[in-house]
Amino acid sequence: MSVESAPAFESALIVGTGLIGTSIGLRLEEYGVHVGLQDANPENVAIATERGAGRPDEPSDTYDLAIVAVPPTYVASTALHILESGKAERVTDVASTKRLVAADAERQGIDPQQFVPSHPMAGREITGPGAALSDLFDGKAWAVTPLPGGERGKTRETVESLISMCGGIALEFTPEDHDRSVALISHVPHVMASVLAAEMSDHEDSLALTGTGLPGIIRVAGGHPELWKDILTTNADPVLNHLHSLREGLDTFITALEAAREGDQSDLRDRLQAGVDGKNAVDWAVQQRASYKDQ
Amino acid sequence: MSVESAPAFESALIVGTGLIGTSIGLRLEEYGVHVGLQDANPENVAIATERGAGRPDEPSDTYDLAIVAVPPTYVASTALHILESGKAERVTDVASTKRLVAADAERQGIDPQQFVPSHPMAGREITGPGAALSDLFDGKAWAVTPLPGGERGKTRETVESLISMCGGIALEFTPEDHDRSVALISHVPHVMASVLAAEMSDHEDSLALTGTGLPGIIRVAGGHPELWKDILTTNADPVLNHLHSLREGLDTFITALEAAREGDQSDLRDRLQAGVDGKNAVDWAVQQRASYKDQ
Repeated sequence: MSVESAPAFESALIVGTGLIGTSIGLRLEEYGVHVGLQDANPENVAIATERGAGRPDEPSDTYDLAIVAVPPTYVASTALHILESGKAERVTDVASTKRLVAADAERQGIDPQQFVPSHPMAGREITGPGAALSDLFDGKAWAVTPLPGGERGKTRETVESLISMCGGIALEFTPEDHDRSVALISHVPHVMASVLAAEMSDHEDSLALTGTGLPGIIRVAGGHPELWKDILTTNADPVLNHLHSLREGLDTFITALEAAREGDQSDLRDRLQAGVDGKNAVDWAVQQRASYKDQ
Repeated sequence: MSVESAPAFESALIVGTGLIGTSIGLRLEEYGVHVGLQDANPENVAIATERGAGRPDEPSDTYDLAIVAVPPTYVASTALHILESGKAERVTDVASTKRLVAADAERQGIDPQQFVPSHPMAGREITGPGAALSDLFDGKAWAVTPLPGGERGKTRETVESLISMCGGIALEFTPEDHDRSVALISHVPHVMASVLAAEMSDHEDSLALTGTGLPGIIRVAGGHPELWKDILTTNADPVLNHLHSLREGLDTFITALEAAREGDQSDLRDRLQAGVDGKNAVDWAVQQRASYKDQ
């Protein structure tokens, strides 16, 4: 890896050394950033340290930036504690849902100039510091969701430096638009994969015929139930909206296949074409994003 | 590639030089089998020939085995024509649904000792001879579905040699069990991917956040609508059975998420765990199959 420029910050505290936190630590260490690590589970800090993602935080250490990588419901209180205790004056997080984080932050009176939430769109179906990869964020979108009233400032610039160092592409969203978007492109696909995967149990003989398609479709269904239960619950309204829409889409498809069985294949063909069009729209969006990075 | 033994047949006719037919031709040529090629579209034969999958069939040529790789509704009549014209005395096919093929073959009075249908569980979302790969079938299941009354004999042995040369793993099914199985592990996942992909159109801003999960889930939805319309229609009953079951699964998930939003996450956790279990069942089946090959 080539280090293209001096870091925009020299030290970072990572609170929560799971997959995401440890992956960020690995990348920042490659840039020579001094990384301190905290986790409720000391074993996770030990693994992350051994992997080279930083070293255990000491009570007297302070940092240019804190990155909060804990479950969504604990994000705002953790950010407040960091700011009040003086561990860092600039904070971001990486939680998967942002309306909750924004509402909690507002309720707790956190300064929107000091806390700029974010969310890297990267993950694996395996979790924990052992699964971390320093290139996890390369070429991936990384949403930045400023709090209401937050203006461009030093925290925002530092967060953008973090994203750039990690190889990500910063995209600004409001917390509401972010949550609606991830409901569509991440949470609902997870539900569909999970529902489909559940259908596969108790069909051992049939599964022997499994080709290459099915494993790719249900791969994400292996994600940790505790983690996903929280993600889906904190984003329930937008996810439910899309699930109801998908349910209608499935009903329409069933009706089209019933008509095809009776001899009229035109609706079935249209439904399949709509799927091709949707896939192409996704491919196009991913290609467009890659071109942002080259600019 | 190492050629481990002499071919069990010396010549093969491939009727239909699309993705599957051309991939078989490429592999057989590596084993020194003389491959003749036919296709309703002469351009496909030219591409397959140029790629090294064989050479155009001449009217006077005869073969040890014919492989029919045409749409399901044309399979039996094509097999009958090959047998009656003396092009080959042993025939197999590669169509995705087998009850229709078996029923057509019986109606046309085809000898079950001479025609042994089969179906390799391999494919790509792109089609045509240009997409063919000689290793497309490596380690993949390849269903063999003898016609009612068919006993083990020379055709069956030749088809098993074909599968072995292609690196596939032969698994015997009745036409009914085959169709039920592929409805579950291939056709229904295709429908779910298609319905999900269709939901993505007209959400350009959200799609910019697409991570690694969604593209993998909807990849198969790019399959050719004409081809899939025929596959789904010829297997409509088993597919519809599973789609109704999936619809119930989706309803149960929606109810669980609504309960979680109100504070009771236990059902949601169970639903997600059922998805993990189903994914593990698929992974286990694929691993088991790989161990067949090592024996």
